[in-house]
Amino acid sequence: MLWSIMGTIAAICTTVGFIPQIIQGIKTRELKDVSPIMLSLLLVGCSLWLAYGVHLKDPIIALANGFTLAFVFAILFLRTLFKRNNAKI
Amino acid sequence: MLWSIMGTIAAICTTVGFIPQIIQGIKTRELKDVSPIMLSLLLVGCSLWLAYGVHLKDPIIALANGFTLAFVFAILFLRTLFKRNNAKI
Repeated sequence: MLWSIMGTIAAICTTVGFIPQIIQGIKTRELKDVSPIMLSLLLVGCSLWLAYGVHLKDPIIALANGFTLAFVFAILFLRTLFKRNNAKI
Repeated sequence: MLWSIMGTIAAICTTVGFIPQIIQGIKTRELKDVSPIMLSLLLVGCSLWLAYGVHLKDPIIALANGFTLAFVFAILFLRTLFKRNNAKI
């Protein structure tokens, strides 16, 4: 019981952890220091984790990675958007 | 078998994914756009995942999160170092 709570808290931390990055990016309109290769590898990794979680019928693995996938995609999208807008100025 | 290979590739992607961020940070000496709150939450999350993996005696969860923990710690360390050095200039 204690261990499943710990696993759940772990999953929440590594999932919601990407939200402050989205907030900081929107505030500063700068994400150039965030590596696009890192974001791409995380996208591939989370997609595979999501498929693996669905296969195992493990809701924690599936949900955590589904949300992380969406957050990482948002960071990559914002990075591309800000880069394009900043290049125009 | 196919699914364990997939899980392993997923774990490798979400672990080595942080290496390009370290390399980019060292090259540009700038990591200010990387959210320190994200890095801190990932540190807490990976530490709990590591403990959970050790408890489950699951080498993939334990190893993947042990390495990710080290990489995220390195990014947070470099970010602090560069911020201090850039403030001096």
